[in-house]
Amino acid sequence: MLSAADNELLTRTGQGTAMGELLRRFWVPALLAEEVAEPQCPPVRLTLMGESLVVWRDADGRLGALEEHCAHRQASLYFGRNESRESRDGACGLRCVYHGWKYDIEGRCIDMPNEPAKSRFKDHIRIRSYPVAERGDVVWIYLGPGDTIPALPDLEWAVVPQNQRFVSKRLQRTNFAQAMEGGIDSSHVSFLHSDARLWNPDWTGAKNSTRNHLVEDGAPKFFVEPTQYGMLVGARRNTTDGRYYWRVTQWLMPWYNIVPRDGDGPISAHAWVPIDDETCWAWSVSFNPDSALTKQQTDHYRAGGSIHAEAIPGTYLPTRNAGNDYLIDRTLQKTVSFTGINGIAMQDVAMQEGMGPIVDRTKEHLGSSDAAVIAARKRMLAEARAFAEAGGDTTPSGLDPLQQRVRSASMILPSDVSWVEATEDSRRAARKHYEYS
Amino acid sequence: MLSAADNELLTRTGQGTAMGELLRRFWVPALLAEEVAEPQCPPVRLTLMGESLVVWRDADGRLGALEEHCAHRQASLYFGRNESRESRDGACGLRCVYHGWKYDIEGRCIDMPNEPAKSRFKDHIRIRSYPVAERGDVVWIYLGPGDTIPALPDLEWAVVPQNQRFVSKRLQRTNFAQAMEGGIDSSHVSFLHSDARLWNPDWTGAKNSTRNHLVEDGAPKFFVEPTQYGMLVGARRNTTDGRYYWRVTQWLMPWYNIVPRDGDGPISAHAWVPIDDETCWAWSVSFNPDSALTKQQTDHYRAGGSIHAEAIPGTYLPTRNAGNDYLIDRTLQKTVSFTGINGIAMQDVAMQEGMGPIVDRTKEHLGSSDAAVIAARKRMLAEARAFAEAGGDTTPSGLDPLQQRVRSASMILPSDVSWVEATEDSRRAARKHYEYS
Amino acid sequence: MLSAADNELLTRTGQGTAMGELLRRFWVPALLAEEVAEPQCPPVRLTLMGESLVVWRDADGRLGALEEHCAHRQASLYFGRNESRESRDGACGLRCVYHGWKYDIEGRCIDMPNEPAKSRFKDHIRIRSYPVAERGDVVWIYLGPGDTIPALPDLEWAVVPQNQRFVSKRLQRTNFAQAMEGGIDSSHVSFLHSDARLWNPDWTGAKNSTRNHLVEDGAPKFFVEPTQYGMLVGARRNTTDGRYYWRVTQWLMPWYNIVPRDGDGPISAHAWVPIDDETCWAWSVSFNPDSALTKQQTDHYRAGGSIHAEAIPGTYLPTRNAGNDYLIDRTLQKTVSFTGINGIAMQDVAMQEGMGPIVDRTKEHLGSSDAAVIAARKRMLAEARAFAEAGGDTTPSGLDPLQQRVRSASMILPSDVSWVEATEDSRRAARKHYEYS
Repeated sequence: MLSAADNELLTRTGQGTAMGELLRRFWVPALLAEEVAEPQCPPVRLTLMGESLVVWRDADGRLGALEEHCAHRQASLYFGRNESRESRDGACGLRCVYHGWKYDIEGRCIDMPNEPAKSRFKDHIRIRSYPVAERGDVVWIYLGPGDTIPALPDLEWAVVPQNQRFVSKRLQRTNFAQAMEGGIDSSHVSFLHSDARLWNPDWTGAKNSTRNHLVEDGAPKFFVEPTQYGMLVGARRNTTDGRYYWRVTQWLMPWYNIVPRDGDGPISAHAWVPIDDETCWAWSVSFNPDSALTKQQTDHYRAGGSIHAEAIPGTYLPTRNAGNDYLIDRTLQKTVSFTGINGIAMQDVAMQEGMGPIVDRTKEHLGSSDAAVIAARKRMLAEARAFAEAGGDTTPSGLDPLQQRVRSASMILPSDVSWVEATEDSRRAARKHYEYS
Repeated sequence: MLSAADNELLTRTGQGTAMGELLRRFWVPALLAEEVAEPQCPPVRLTLMGESLVVWRDADGRLGALEEHCAHRQASLYFGRNESRESRDGACGLRCVYHGWKYDIEGRCIDMPNEPAKSRFKDHIRIRSYPVAERGDVVWIYLGPGDTIPALPDLEWAVVPQNQRFVSKRLQRTNFAQAMEGGIDSSHVSFLHSDARLWNPDWTGAKNSTRNHLVEDGAPKFFVEPTQYGMLVGARRNTTDGRYYWRVTQWLMPWYNIVPRDGDGPISAHAWVPIDDETCWAWSVSFNPDSALTKQQTDHYRAGGSIHAEAIPGTYLPTRNAGNDYLIDRTLQKTVSFTGINGIAMQDVAMQEGMGPIVDRTKEHLGSSDAAVIAARKRMLAEARAFAEAGGDTTPSGLDPLQQRVRSASMILPSDVSWVEATEDSRRAARKHYEYS
Repeated sequence: MLSAADNELLTRTGQGTAMGELLRRFWVPALLAEEVAEPQCPPVRLTLMGESLVVWRDADGRLGALEEHCAHRQASLYFGRNESRESRDGACGLRCVYHGWKYDIEGRCIDMPNEPAKSRFKDHIRIRSYPVAERGDVVWIYLGPGDTIPALPDLEWAVVPQNQRFVSKRLQRTNFAQAMEGGIDSSHVSFLHSDARLWNPDWTGAKNSTRNHLVEDGAPKFFVEPTQYGMLVGARRNTTDGRYYWRVTQWLMPWYNIVPRDGDGPISAHAWVPIDDETCWAWSVSFNPDSALTKQQTDHYRAGGSIHAEAIPGTYLPTRNAGNDYLIDRTLQKTVSFTGINGIAMQDVAMQEGMGPIVDRTKEHLGSSDAAVIAARKRMLAEARAFAEAGGDTTPSGLDPLQQRVRSASMILPSDVSWVEATEDSRRAARKHYEYS
């Protein structure tokens, strides 16, 4: 549990909040690249940590991210014209349709046709522009001070070849920390995501699979190793032959986590990004560091399979949501599914949204299996406090790209072997993916 | 009218409010029994006086009412598994699907599969459970302190044989007191619920019926007799032959009332229960203390007839509601209906919701026909004040089941006869219904 | 830009606010006459500056405007019976259906059937009634003190013969001032409402039209002449032959403006009326002071053409709205339309609603083309301040009907001619329309 004050500190991300200012020192996964795929495509509106932005790709193919409203009369640039060099002033830019003020991707007002030709007023007008970059099918935006822009994250999923990766996002109606804690907590996998048949001792359908290990020991012992990027979490489960099944995941500052693959299958990864304090974007990535995803896999993900979610067409809003009780099927819940809710993602969301938009952490009763969640909270709170105490004049941990080149792992080990050492090689992201650097 | 302070005192029912604490000393009509009809049926979520609960019937058929959220991480137990003795731990209980914590109907954590087998953590975990009981097709819940649980109400409708009773509930978007005042006020019956044709002196369709008496004298004189259970209200109307038509109703602390039958027909009764301070459940009961209801009658009630309301299928939300102006028919209003709104219940609701969710009682102008409403408010306010002043260390009036065995009555009496004495026998609930006691 | 305090002063219109009290000294365009067209028609509910009203036409054809709620128990008179002289008490009036209290159009309680016949209680009951009048297909209501009722506005559109006028209203989800500023600002016409083809120097489709002048010089110079009624605004644009294209509009206290006609076509006019501080009614009028509108014109307006908006059938809610991004067509925006949004009205609304319900005017950067908006704000703020300082004991400017008999104009003038003098005759409303006075 947290004190009410710590719960506030953890969950408030607006400008001027301690956590919000810390988060602003990190690149933010902001849009799917597909949302601004084409040069001169329509601008996209979005809100990140309570700030309204408009993102667009100009006719020359460059990305721009601006504060949403025109400096003149505060009309939304979302309705703006994305103009090419063929336009009146000969430059690419986003023109407000109210009175024609036009901005380049750096927020400079480059045309002001409603003022006299000789006016220099436009030279004094500049709206806030945000550094923006593309990597790994994601558009990243940096909301912090201009003199402290870090390198882009070197997360392995973001740098593998495109055909080895599938990225989706979905809207979640909770605070980002609440969603993230679900990602850090690998204990619930034994329950929430279990096939209910595994709970039946007579059922022999899936013996010896990973899922079986997860259910055979629902009370993993957690080991947390603090790292520069965040923390390494080892969840140890007993197997029937006296060895340990280790499930090793990373949590990376400030909102990433990586979940192990089954055998040679795809690795899962997530990011949890505040829209405002009561909604967030849940990002989900399936990637294979070694080979292309198959069409069967990507079709499956696109339909809401694995960690992805089926969306209302044309949106990133889940088909299953609080308004329809996640289409829970109580008959299924009595037979083959532990929850009766279809899909890993929506099982998580039912739990997390069911807590209310900002869960009251003063009411919790945490146990030994919550060790990783507890450690991540402590780290986030300590980082936010230290950052605030330093008046922002410090570099948060977790920004070093070299440290981010990690990978989750799972392994069956004899009981006398060090999990940290034994998984060390497996936890290294493939060097080949970083040839660009 | 009330002062603004008294209006607050009357209408605020959350934990810690004076009225809220008083109301928590009474059993609350919480669910229709049909909502948790079967052993091992899906749990039901509900809110009472601002408190979130989950109610369920375990596989052995016992009812449980728990606070909604799991003690561990505050996931909603609404999504929980209602497990039988065939389950892993061999006991009936509601298992949270997030990490598998399982509770019995008394809120004790009886299984905690995500902690080591030898852990005793679960023995320290108990969530709030509420006493729950079934009577009269209703599931009752007690939200107050455990050492002051009263007997279940001995309302006649709740103890007659099941085939003599029809119970419904509907959501109303007002404070409970506002709804209840409509039930206490038998003056509006002459208008709101009148057949407009009765107002036409030429119309001879329904002379000498009860309805006719109600319209013949729309200005009844009210007599209020305070009682231990609440109050007895006599509404006296003149008839054309010089005698009085008496309509005698009871208001029982803290939210019940009983409305007289026509001849040997069914008696009507209500309860008005706060969900939060701006919504309530309006309960309606039609019962015949002497004989089974006919199929024609129950079909009529089920379709929204008499005091019941037509609902959106699969819900307890009225088909006619503020969003569609209660389907008011202005042509009907000009011809045969006083309101143009179909159904007694929805006529009431249009009035009560039309006042806003918490009516501003400082703006009222009450007359002699409001005597019963005024008296009920005074009683509620006095009881809440006395209860608060005693620090809750007192027994509110209205809890004695023997006193609750009353019945409404209507009677034509010579002008020199005491209504209280003349109706005394008729106002006694039939002794046979209490043989269990 | 405005200070935060001035932004509050400008936009808050509730009872007791400085601006609200000032606005209450003016007649308010409240309903389309069609909404209460027939004697004894259903009453209409509406909210003006946060006050809830019910408006009705009695069986004798007289209009009444009352506070919405019955004095007795605060039931909404919207559900009331509009009764004729054929009724029980022999008078026209609106009868509350809860307990039958009946009001005449002046708010006097004229029947109280739930009190004894000899009771004089009703003589003490009077709810607030508002002066109400009909002119120009509009029902006007006066919300201010009874001893300072001004003459009805002598706006030309309101007094021309009915077949020369088309009036519509639509709901807008912004503060009234934000909408009004769009009407005052004739600079945006060159952009927001332009045909994108005009921006292409090769396009010759519509040379020398008014629209062409507007686009040829998108940076008009503004001249503001304060007047008793508000202000006269001259927008001067250069033409290709060295002369000036003058566009002369009026802004009339407190929420009207008039826009010039093209040639002999209809003149446009608007009113912007607060519902509450985050929504307003946008009134639009097309009128020809000289001759009847053609069927083609009124059909066009009714379909949402010109300054009017297509509405969801049976409502005054625009089909194009924030919920569907005003049906913006990005392909159209790249080709023939500057915005891709269909309709002048909805182009305006996309800009104004896109600012948020109350725009933060502290963030603006106003230029020379905003001179008229700046002047109107200053005037409104000064009037509100002076009115408040005088404790309301003063007559606001803008109430003299003789001064309101003005008309907008547009004209091409040599550069050495005074626009005020040259347009003087054209700016005079036709005398013949005021024969009634």
